[in-house]
Amino acid sequence: MDAAAPIGVFDSGIGGLTVLRALRLALPTEDFVYLGDTARLPYGTKSRESIVRYSVQAADALVERGIKCLVIACNTASAVAIDALRERLAPLPVIGVLEPGAQAACAASVTGRIAVIATEGTVQGGAYQRAIHAIRPDARVIAQACSLFVALAEEGWTQGPLVEGIVRRYFEPIFCVSRAEQPDCLVLGCTHFPVLKPVMHDVLGEDIVIVDSAETTAGAVRELLQSRSLGKQTPGGDVRLLATDGRERFARVSSTFFGSGVRPESVELVDL
Amino acid sequence: MDAAAPIGVFDSGIGGLTVLRALRLALPTEDFVYLGDTARLPYGTKSRESIVRYSVQAADALVERGIKCLVIACNTASAVAIDALRERLAPLPVIGVLEPGAQAACAASVTGRIAVIATEGTVQGGAYQRAIHAIRPDARVIAQACSLFVALAEEGWTQGPLVEGIVRRYFEPIFCVSRAEQPDCLVLGCTHFPVLKPVMHDVLGEDIVIVDSAETTAGAVRELLQSRSLGKQTPGGDVRLLATDGRERFARVSSTFFGSGVRPESVELVDL
Repeated sequence: MDAAAPIGVFDSGIGGLTVLRALRLALPTEDFVYLGDTARLPYGTKSRESIVRYSVQAADALVERGIKCLVIACNTASAVAIDALRERLAPLPVIGVLEPGAQAACAASVTGRIAVIATEGTVQGGAYQRAIHAIRPDARVIAQACSLFVALAEEGWTQGPLVEGIVRRYFEPIFCVSRAEQPDCLVLGCTHFPVLKPVMHDVLGEDIVIVDSAETTAGAVRELLQSRSLGKQTPGGDVRLLATDGRERFARVSSTFFGSGVRPESVELVDL
Repeated sequence: MDAAAPIGVFDSGIGGLTVLRALRLALPTEDFVYLGDTARLPYGTKSRESIVRYSVQAADALVERGIKCLVIACNTASAVAIDALRERLAPLPVIGVLEPGAQAACAASVTGRIAVIATEGTVQGGAYQRAIHAIRPDARVIAQACSLFVALAEEGWTQGPLVEGIVRRYFEPIFCVSRAEQPDCLVLGCTHFPVLKPVMHDVLGEDIVIVDSAETTAGAVRELLQSRSLGKQTPGGDVRLLATDGRERFARVSSTFFGSGVRPESVELVDL
C-alpha cells in the first residue's frame, strides 16, 4: 500500500458525506475519493444479496482508483457487506461505521443501557445490537427507527420547535422511562443524523452521551493509518466526488452535509 | 384485448397502492396485477434514461401477465416515461396519474390559481406545471416539494398536532398570501399524500378543493374501459402483488396504504 494514495469512502448516497467531513477534519493531509451510489439508494430497504453485490461493485470502482484503505460510510452496507468486502480486498484495510460506533458506545456507557437510533433497515437488521453485545454482553440495547430524521436532514430542517417536537416524539418511548431503565448513551446509527445533534442535545440534556459514528469512524481510520504507517506526510486535502446518478442533486444536497458548496461539474458520473 | 383480463398497475414502490385502492373501489369487478419496483425505488432522484429503462422493464413484465391496460401509478414514471410506454405497448391503453390529476384541477379551479404538492423530483421535472398549462394556458401553478410527507405516510403519522404543524409549515408559503394570490385548488401530486388528506382538509378549510390523483386516475380508467367496451362483466376483485425486492417490508408497509393486511407469502418476487 502506498501512503500517498487516497482513502476511499463509499456510501449508498450523500449521507456518508458527514463521515467524509469528519475524516477531513481528523486527517487534513489525506486525499479522498468518495463514491455515492445515488442510482440505487436507499440500501436499507434492499435484500442482503443486492446490498453485497452493490457494495462489491462500488468497492471495485474505488480500488481501481488506487485507494490505500476503504471506509464504508453506509450503515446498511457496513452491517451486511463488510465481511465480503474484507475477504475480497485483503490485504487492503476496510473500516465500517458500525464497529467504531459500537466500541465508543460501550466505552462511554456507565450503566450498560445503550440506545441506538437508525433507519428502519438498520434497526431490523440488528447489526448494532450484535456489535454492542459482542463487546459488552451485559449491555441492554434499545434500538429505535427514526425514519423522519433522514427527511428532516435532507430538507435542511435542523432546528426549531417542529424539529424538536419530532425528536421528542421519537425519544419519548426510549428516554421517558424510570431512571433504572433509562439509557445513558445514544448512538447515531445513521449518517444523516449528525446534522440533528444540536437539537438532540437540547432535548436530552447533558447527562446522556451522544455517540456520533462519523466522528468515531474518523478516529478509527486515524488509528489504523498510524498503526500501519500509512499516514500521508505531505500536504493534501484533495477530494474527488463520484456518483452513479443525478450529479445536480448530488451537488446541491451534498453542500448541506459537506458544509461547503459543491459544483455539479466537479461530480464525476460512474457506471458500476 | 380481452375484457376478462386484469388491469396492470405499476409503481416505483408501495405508494401506488393508494391508486390500486381507488381503482378497486371504482371498479369492483376488475382483477389487478400490481408491480412495485421496490428494488430500485425511489425513481424521483434518478435520471430520465434510468426511469424510462426501468418503466419499460416493469411494463413488459406486466404485459407478459396478459393485462388489458396499464396504469402508471408513479408520478415520476408518468411524467417521464408515458410517451415511450404508449409507443411500445400500442394498441394497449396506457394511463398515467398525471393527466387525470391535471384535468381535474383545471376543471375544479375557478380562479385558475392551482397549487401542486409533490416530491422534489416531480416538482423539479415540471410535468404537472406543463400538463396543467397544456389544458389551461392562463393557469398560475405554484409547485411545492413536500419531502417529509412521504416519510410521514410511511411512518403512519397521519394525524395530531405535529403532523398538522408540518403540513402548516409547507402550506404557509403557498396559502398564507393575499386573497388575490391564493390558490383555490390543491393537487396531491404524489401517491403517498392521500393518507394525509384529512389533516390537509383541517388546515386548509372547506374553500380549497383537494384533487386526489388516485381517485381521478381511477375515474379515468373507468371511462376508458367503458368507451372501449373493455369492462369486465363477471365477478372479480382478484389482486396479484409483485415486487422486485423485500417482500416482508412490502407486505408490512402496504397494509397501511392498502387498508387491509397483506401476507409476505402472497407477494411474488420478480426480477426485471
